[in-house]
Amino acid sequence: MTKRTGNSLYFNIQEQLLKQIESGVYKVGERLPTEAELCQIFSASRTTIRLALSELEVQGIVERIQGKGTFVKRKELQLIHTRSFTEDVLMQGKEPTSQIVEAKVVPAEMPLHEFLQAPLHAPINELLRVRYADNEPLIYERTYIPWNLAPGLVNDYKEGSLFTFLETKYQLKPKRSVEQLKPILADKTANKLLGIKEGSPCLQVKSFTYLTDDTPLEYSFGVFRGDFSSYTIERHF
Amino acid sequence: MTKRTGNSLYFNIQEQLLKQIESGVYKVGERLPTEAELCQIFSASRTTIRLALSELEVQGIVERIQGKGTFVKRKELQLIHTRSFTEDVLMQGKEPTSQIVEAKVVPAEMPLHEFLQAPLHAPINELLRVRYADNEPLIYERTYIPWNLAPGLVNDYKEGSLFTFLETKYQLKPKRSVEQLKPILADKTANKLLGIKEGSPCLQVKSFTYLTDDTPLEYSFGVFRGDFSSYTIERHF
Repeated sequence: MTKRTGNSLYFNIQEQLLKQIESGVYKVGERLPTEAELCQIFSASRTTIRLALSELEVQGIVERIQGKGTFVKRKELQLIHTRSFTEDVLMQGKEPTSQIVEAKVVPAEMPLHEFLQAPLHAPINELLRVRYADNEPLIYERTYIPWNLAPGLVNDYKEGSLFTFLETKYQLKPKRSVEQLKPILADKTANKLLGIKEGSPCLQVKSFTYLTDDTPLEYSFGVFRGDFSSYTIERHF
Repeated sequence: MTKRTGNSLYFNIQEQLLKQIESGVYKVGERLPTEAELCQIFSASRTTIRLALSELEVQGIVERIQGKGTFVKRKELQLIHTRSFTEDVLMQGKEPTSQIVEAKVVPAEMPLHEFLQAPLHAPINELLRVRYADNEPLIYERTYIPWNLAPGLVNDYKEGSLFTFLETKYQLKPKRSVEQLKPILADKTANKLLGIKEGSPCLQVKSFTYLTDDTPLEYSFGVFRGDFSSYTIERHF
C-alpha cells in the first residue's frame, strides 16, 4: 500500500529487527529488548528506535503493550477479495489445506429454499470444511450446492479447489458472487472448529454464487477468525 | 439476491406480516402472535406459518428465540461496497446525517507518516465524525488528509460529502481506494460514540484512498456497529 522512497536509519533498524524475527532470533510471543537496550545495540536515538518499532507495529509484526514492552506478534494473514483463499495463503508463504468435517445431503428448507431457489425439500449437497494456513485453522465454511446441479458431489469431492472440481466434473462455471460480511462473536462451533475462545471477534461471510444465466450455484456460510486475518478490497472510482 | 417466481400461501402470509410490522401494528422488540395463533388468524397449517416466519427471519425482519417466540427485529442496514454511506442509507428509506466530533491538525507520526507518505511531523488534517441513519449512530470514522493537499480543510469542511468538498474546493479527485476489513470488539470509544456495549461485535474498516498519480489522498479508520448492519460486495469471475 505504500512505497518507500530512499532509505533512512530507522528503516534499516526496522529491516534488521524484521530479519531477526523471521529467522527466529525473536519468536512469536517473545519480548524484544527494551527501547534503551535497542538504542545501545543500534547506536541510535530513542526517537529512531521508536519509529522503527512503530513501523513494525503498523505492519502487524510486533505489538507494544503499555508498561510491558514490545512483543513479537503472529503475522496477520491478509485475505484479498479478488483472490481465492488458496492463492492468498500461498502468496504469504504458507501452506493452504482444508479438511472436510461433514459431507451430507439435506432437504431445502428455509433459507436454502430461498437462497438457492430450490424447490422445498429438494436435495442439497452440504459440505462443512475447515481451512488452514500452515496447520492453523482460519475459516470454517458450510457450503450448499443443489443436488440437481452436482449430483453426488458430497461423495466424490475430497480436496482441492471446489470451483475447479465443479467445472471439471459438472461443467459448472460461476459468473459472479455476492458476499455479505458481518462482524460476529465466536460461538461454540467456532470454538470447537477454530480453537478460539467464545466471544472473540470473527467475520461472518455469506456468499452467493451464480452461473451465467443467474441460476444460484452455491450458498456458503463462512466464519473467519478475526485475531490474525484481515480482508482487503480494492475499489476504483 | 433472490427472485420469487409465482405466489404461494406462505408468501402471502409473509407479506401481510411484513405490512403489519412496517405499519407499526407490531413494533421493534414486540412479540408476534404464537404459531398456533397465527395458524388461526391466517387459516393456515403450522408448516406454512413456519415457512413465512423463516423467510421473515432470513430477511432480518424478525428473530425467533427458542422457547420465547418470534420478535420484531430492528431492520438491518445493508451497506454496499460500491456505494457511499449516504446513498446506502437513502436507498433504504432512512435519513443519513453526520456529526463532526473533532477537527484538528496533527503532526505526521507513524502510522500516518507511512500511510500518507507524508514527511515526519508534517501537518495532517484530522476529522472525527459519527455517521447516523435516522439519528441512530452507525459508524465512527477518523479521517486524515495531508494539509499540503487540502490546507485549512478542518476549518472549512462542515457537513455533506467530504469527497465532493475535496473536489469542489481543492480539485482533488480520488482514483481508487483500498479497504481493509477486520472484525473487532467495541472499545470505550465505540461505547461512547455509538452507544453500544464494550465487547459487542464491530467491523473495523481501514481505508486508503489515492489520486490519479497514486499520491495518498486520505487514510481513514472507521468502526461500524455490527449489530444492525452488514457489508455487501459483488465480484465477477
